[in-house]
Amino acid sequence: MAIINEHTVKAFDADLNRLRGLISEMGGRAEQALIQAMSALANGDRPLAAEVVEGDKAIDALETEVERLAVQTIALRAPMADDLREMIAALKIVSVVERIGDYAKNIAKRVALMDPARSIEAIPLLTSMSSLVAELIHDALDSFAARDTELALRVTVRDKTVDDFYNSIFRTLVTFMMENPRHITESAHLLFVAKNLERMGDHATNIAEMVYYAVTGERMEERERGEQPEDGAAEQE
Amino acid sequence: MAIINEHTVKAFDADLNRLRGLISEMGGRAEQALIQAMSALANGDRPLAAEVVEGDKAIDALETEVERLAVQTIALRAPMADDLREMIAALKIVSVVERIGDYAKNIAKRVALMDPARSIEAIPLLTSMSSLVAELIHDALDSFAARDTELALRVTVRDKTVDDFYNSIFRTLVTFMMENPRHITESAHLLFVAKNLERMGDHATNIAEMVYYAVTGERMEERERGEQPEDGAAEQE
Repeated sequence: MAIINEHTVKAFDADLNRLRGLISEMGGRAEQALIQAMSALANGDRPLAAEVVEGDKAIDALETEVERLAVQTIALRAPMADDLREMIAALKIVSVVERIGDYAKNIAKRVALMDPARSIEAIPLLTSMSSLVAELIHDALDSFAARDTELALRVTVRDKTVDDFYNSIFRTLVTFMMENPRHITESAHLLFVAKNLERMGDHATNIAEMVYYAVTGERMEERERGEQPEDGAAEQE
Repeated sequence: MAIINEHTVKAFDADLNRLRGLISEMGGRAEQALIQAMSALANGDRPLAAEVVEGDKAIDALETEVERLAVQTIALRAPMADDLREMIAALKIVSVVERIGDYAKNIAKRVALMDPARSIEAIPLLTSMSSLVAELIHDALDSFAARDTELALRVTVRDKTVDDFYNSIFRTLVTFMMENPRHITESAHLLFVAKNLERMGDHATNIAEMVYYAVTGERMEERERGEQPEDGAAEQE
């Protein structure tokens, strides 16, 4: 940054901190949306589910604000390599957080489609799975705020447990469907909820990978990565 | 761009054209991956499915190349508002195309998990659905290459037909599961294939929305949009 004057540097840092603050707020809302959506699902609480659906608009609005600020900052401050990489990472991370919010909204929308009395076998497993996923989202965003590559690496490792949860829920639900053909529609919805949670874990991993790249300028090693999004491996073994 | 000298402008245009070329190549590969994955699924062709899985690496490598080139261009040329917006759009579009490739890989991976003789009821519907989705991906990328907002708008409108396909496949598969409890695992895989196709259609819509924003500087009207990704509406009614 040597060739840039101090004022520009200070202004850039201010913009960057504002960006970080907006992304933390977005991440907090997405994490909260997931927790509320799962509680609405477990308790058949449709008003709470409707709240989650409505609340997703605030997450989308934050994404738009972050994009405007990031593009404006790049245009005005013409940041150097490292800072530019952080700006680009911020842009990519908010689009992932926005998707995590969409998945929470998706889970919440299913509450109205289901009879809460049905397919409850899988609910406790789904609840434990979602607690872990919420943790991974939280840690992935903390790793961004703190530029903590160690924490980012731990997120990608723990995502494998999310895939194990998914495998066992997939088997539980398929067995339940076989035994209760009349409840297949509800079980199919829970199958998608489980898949949504698995995808959210993958997205937490994506954020961790972006943080790792933004901080180190290197891609995370394949062997250190969690499963790639939607590669179907979650049903394999 | 008045304040930038002609050499910089020419150099920027060259970078932009190279970016566009890489994105078209990526999009063509993703579209091809979808078509091959569906043909592998319909014919139980495991070698072809394995080819699709292997081919996804080339798509991921193209994404990395586009990101490097875009960040380098922004850093070297410090493009003005419109050009910067186009660069940012390019970065966001490649990450969506990469995800479309992952969905095709996901479909291909399921071929090895399934007995092709089973749940074939849904295959013709899935094949028609995937032809439409491949078209939308193709048109969305053409709208980017040609900066064609009309074509972009048509993509978002036609995505609603993809959701209709999804609804009818969801019902077909649930009915089939009820009648054939022994084939529930295969049907569940096809349910995810249908959901993957629906998501690919949503991603084509996302690309169309980004093109619209990059060209006009305005967001596409909600009323003109296709369904948001994974909002669960596709199973409703």
